[in-house]
Amino acid sequence: MNIKEETKKMKLDAPKLAATTNEQRNAALEAIAVALSNHKDEIFAENEKDMVAAEANNIPQAIIKRLKYGDNKLNDCIKGIHDLMSLEDPLGKVTLNRELDKGLTLKRVSVPIGVIGVIFEARPDALVQISSLCIKSGNCAILKGGKETTNTNKVLFNIIKEAVISAGLPRNSLLQAEAHSEINELLECDEYVDLLIPRGSNSFVRYIMENTKIPVMGHSSGVCHIYVDKTFDLEKAVPVIVDSKIQYAAACNAVETLLFNKGVSDTDVATILDALVDAGVTIRGDKEAATRVNSINNNNYISDEDIMSETEFDTEYNDFKISIKFIDGVDEAINHINYYGSHHTDSILTTDKACSELFMAMVDSASVYTNCSTRFADGFRYGFGAEVGISTGKIHARGPVGLEGLVTYKYKLVGNGDIVDDFASGKREFHHRDL
Amino acid sequence: MNIKEETKKMKLDAPKLAATTNEQRNAALEAIAVALSNHKDEIFAENEKDMVAAEANNIPQAIIKRLKYGDNKLNDCIKGIHDLMSLEDPLGKVTLNRELDKGLTLKRVSVPIGVIGVIFEARPDALVQISSLCIKSGNCAILKGGKETTNTNKVLFNIIKEAVISAGLPRNSLLQAEAHSEINELLECDEYVDLLIPRGSNSFVRYIMENTKIPVMGHSSGVCHIYVDKTFDLEKAVPVIVDSKIQYAAACNAVETLLFNKGVSDTDVATILDALVDAGVTIRGDKEAATRVNSINNNNYISDEDIMSETEFDTEYNDFKISIKFIDGVDEAINHINYYGSHHTDSILTTDKACSELFMAMVDSASVYTNCSTRFADGFRYGFGAEVGISTGKIHARGPVGLEGLVTYKYKLVGNGDIVDDFASGKREFHHRDL
Repeated sequence: MNIKEETKKMKLDAPKLAATTNEQRNAALEAIAVALSNHKDEIFAENEKDMVAAEANNIPQAIIKRLKYGDNKLNDCIKGIHDLMSLEDPLGKVTLNRELDKGLTLKRVSVPIGVIGVIFEARPDALVQISSLCIKSGNCAILKGGKETTNTNKVLFNIIKEAVISAGLPRNSLLQAEAHSEINELLECDEYVDLLIPRGSNSFVRYIMENTKIPVMGHSSGVCHIYVDKTFDLEKAVPVIVDSKIQYAAACNAVETLLFNKGVSDTDVATILDALVDAGVTIRGDKEAATRVNSINNNNYISDEDIMSETEFDTEYNDFKISIKFIDGVDEAINHINYYGSHHTDSILTTDKACSELFMAMVDSASVYTNCSTRFADGFRYGFGAEVGISTGKIHARGPVGLEGLVTYKYKLVGNGDIVDDFASGKREFHHRDL
Repeated sequence: MNIKEETKKMKLDAPKLAATTNEQRNAALEAIAVALSNHKDEIFAENEKDMVAAEANNIPQAIIKRLKYGDNKLNDCIKGIHDLMSLEDPLGKVTLNRELDKGLTLKRVSVPIGVIGVIFEARPDALVQISSLCIKSGNCAILKGGKETTNTNKVLFNIIKEAVISAGLPRNSLLQAEAHSEINELLECDEYVDLLIPRGSNSFVRYIMENTKIPVMGHSSGVCHIYVDKTFDLEKAVPVIVDSKIQYAAACNAVETLLFNKGVSDTDVATILDALVDAGVTIRGDKEAATRVNSINNNNYISDEDIMSETEFDTEYNDFKISIKFIDGVDEAINHINYYGSHHTDSILTTDKACSELFMAMVDSASVYTNCSTRFADGFRYGFGAEVGISTGKIHARGPVGLEGLVTYKYKLVGNGDIVDDFASGKREFHHRDL
């Protein structure tokens, strides 16, 4: 397959897909749901091949669990598609309607971005979710999934593509890239592809960003913080900190650094660290932190090898490890987080409303929290129906990205022979009246 | 000056500027307006130096006219600042307010982008306008103007910076880059600079895009079209076409290609071409176009050297030249424009409402027009107060970009010790109630 030729065809079909109605796009989604259900035995048989290959290749059990695509996941996917159908049309929303002068009317209307490439991890439900999101938002999509789900992805994609075409959407609405080498071909297609959304490891996302002229929406890392303020509610803080670290330690929204106000008592610090240690978390910290916490009841919370240098505070562990540091107050917390963090998600635990407000105003992250777990940063939890990714960039879309991140807008101006020279010469004047 | 060190300081001050109120930012704008007025003799004296240097360097008169900064332009700038003050605060707008579950409330709030670098043409009013827009939107700004206005820019910048500091905004809110070499230093500051807005020639904007990891918002070219449909109002079409081409031929929103429906009569084609020729415009076209138009009353509209190859239809003349082509209808117009155009501004002249709607839905450009001049694509004409540039990208901001293009958003979540595990385990359920 020649990716450049295929994306060129998609670019030509993109305006046709953009011009479809919500009803047509929902009908295609319904066709996908029906087709998935009708072909489930075929899907499960292909998934079994991936499972057998994964066992043979000694893939870790935690990952194998993600590869499995059975009745439960299929039903979740179908429910997800129906949820998406019930969401209002993201296209054609008029966000500005202004008469520039008599008979000259400007509208700003939401439209799809065009052709979007999504590169995602080995999870069969991701392929279904992403293609559905792109269809709902009228975008042509190039899909490249992880190699461990090759067989499942192939059958799912063929079923979905056929359903979309049978529902009357343009033939080149969807494309699957299968070979890893096709990613590099895709990176060259800046003439035809409007946006890339890479999901996966930090280094992979960075590789994509550094090797293409296509705009990239992705998160480059998740170095999330919790700041424990001078006055806080210990009983609530302990479960929030433990949840933020271990509820899913490999997630980008798991906490990596715990900042303690120096005024927090030794007893409270010990209660928090004991809870983390009991949960299997290794405590790391700078020299000052080690000196302080290791002297509490002679607990050796931080071993010699876990004493960190200052520069290590930008570490994303994705593991049962946490960095700790003692600081003077909320101002230092803000500076530390803005400097070492990745602008993803950061939380303050405090009973001081002014400190909470200052923290939320000045921490420069996509999500800023007070008294809750960093793990809430997620499109589903935010109620976006589904998410295409979490953006740590500030341009276009930030934080968990749902349908809204897949649209842009265009300006439509309708006149009656109007010319600029009449306004430049003073013959006419703009009155800019919002309708 | 070390640009990296300076932008690092700005990055630290950015959250402080972000946390200021609209009143504080308006007070700084007022201080700028007053200071400009108080120092006008000094400004005019410096401007005179640039004018003398320009004459000595044989800069074309059209450009020298743009360099002049006198009472009229100063008063326009001061009026512009007062207009900006009267606009509502672009920050702190709550665009989502949702209870995820009892006591757990999510808000999406508009915030500044952070640190923005703007590189602009030699026009003293541009420096005033851009710095004011950045202050109003709470962004730290690095300003680099054209070298022909070095003296004027320097005095303007110093006056503006002092006014901003005296009004209590952070010391590092504004920075001026003076040497051209500092542009390359700036391109390396991806750790500290959130967005670059280059204005200027096509090749310059492309150079910036290809040499930095910082997101770039810029237009790469303006290849704008007018499609003359089968049924149209000749009397209105002629002035619209002439205005689009010559009202300001060097502008990015000037028309470059005229597409005629083959069904347009020879008489109408001749009337349009005569008007263009009378206005001093050279007609260029493909072989087919030359054959057709040159046979009308034996007019030699297209000379031999102006017969174009198909691939030349992506040409941006920025001059008194226009490409013409005869096509089958609106579908071919859409395909031609989406392929050869630059997704900037394109207009259809028609009395057929269905054709107009199809054109506006399927032409993939920032601005799509019916029966009016392409020259309307402009922030001031759209009523945005001012514009930082016109974006031909689709990500983040599209078309003329005013204050809205200088903000992003953050999510603020306030809870009471809430953890994700309670939701994962089924103990609690999200109810996602919009407030």
